[in-house]
Amino acid sequence: MDTALALEVSAQNLLFREAHTANTFTDEPVSDEQIEAVYDLVKLAPTAFNQSPLRITLVRSPEARERLVGHLAEGNRAKTRTAPLTAILSVDLDFHERLPELFPVMPGLKDSVFAEVETREQAGTLNAALQAGYFILGVRAAGLAAGPMTGYDADGVNKEFFGDGKQKAIMVVNIGRPGQDAYRPRGPRLSARDAVTTL
Amino acid sequence: MDTALALEVSAQNLLFREAHTANTFTDEPVSDEQIEAVYDLVKLAPTAFNQSPLRITLVRSPEARERLVGHLAEGNRAKTRTAPLTAILSVDLDFHERLPELFPVMPGLKDSVFAEVETREQAGTLNAALQAGYFILGVRAAGLAAGPMTGYDADGVNKEFFGDGKQKAIMVVNIGRPGQDAYRPRGPRLSARDAVTTL
Repeated sequence: MDTALALEVSAQNLLFREAHTANTFTDEPVSDEQIEAVYDLVKLAPTAFNQSPLRITLVRSPEARERLVGHLAEGNRAKTRTAPLTAILSVDLDFHERLPELFPVMPGLKDSVFAEVETREQAGTLNAALQAGYFILGVRAAGLAAGPMTGYDADGVNKEFFGDGKQKAIMVVNIGRPGQDAYRPRGPRLSARDAVTTL
Repeated sequence: MDTALALEVSAQNLLFREAHTANTFTDEPVSDEQIEAVYDLVKLAPTAFNQSPLRITLVRSPEARERLVGHLAEGNRAKTRTAPLTAILSVDLDFHERLPELFPVMPGLKDSVFAEVETREQAGTLNAALQAGYFILGVRAAGLAAGPMTGYDADGVNKEFFGDGKQKAIMVVNIGRPGQDAYRPRGPRLSARDAVTTL
């Protein structure tokens, strides 16, 4: 099966086959430089009109961590307190402000297609989620484990961290080296027969 | 910069640095087996509660292709007519039906958290977009170029291909080997300084 792919088997393993969502972490720190290397790789993957709406808030200080933990679902609290680093992934609802620079071939986009915040929220959330997928694989590309979570009070997180209303959280991701008993058994996946249809 | 990452530089190049959105393609066919190999790799990456809401419709026959092209934005038509293969990525709004099998540790999810279609559409669209990110990188892992597009009449595509209302398109992706003048110059990306904040 691997032979149908151009990507080295070692890279397939690092990114997909041997990587798992981690629920415990060692205390080895994750540096801002490591995250910058991840970002500088995954920022190259595409978004519509190069809108690049994903923003990453690294919750590093104990104070900031505690502000976040209070808004998480009960089952996500202990692991988020002990992860070396936690990132809030959010969509910038004002991403259109950067479009003249990011997509100069259509200079009018900012004030036409993306003039309305409802349009920006819909397109931005989809494209930020696409970038979240790139980011999770980028964390794995750095030899780290990601623990993405959507179990949190979204309004609470948004008010706590994005009080001006210009960003909305789409996901929270713990990042670090996997600790003891870090992984749950991998669940079954849908087969191609179930998920792929040819017309 | 590369040295901060565990992933081989050759794999970084294949997936991110040397890969580009393609706008023209050669006529070399893309087989269902190639797409199955892509799917079998990227299906392993995580979704919330393993909900796996992404569905892939491969538009292969000339008749199906023409049904799709009519709903695309003008600028997306010619390249979609000539791409060896086009995939409609969609969210299955009934993904909860498979949850007892996909996430057996919480057997009640199907009829509690995900009982309402509005909840499924919101969570499913976010997680399908996450999987779309994995899929685009998976196409590149197969040595192919992806040409993702969101410029189409969503209601038209949904009625044409998902008339029962159980799926909604989130993206259309042309797939093949890049042809002549396939790439536009890569646009600038936001620097880590602009996109990443540390608290």
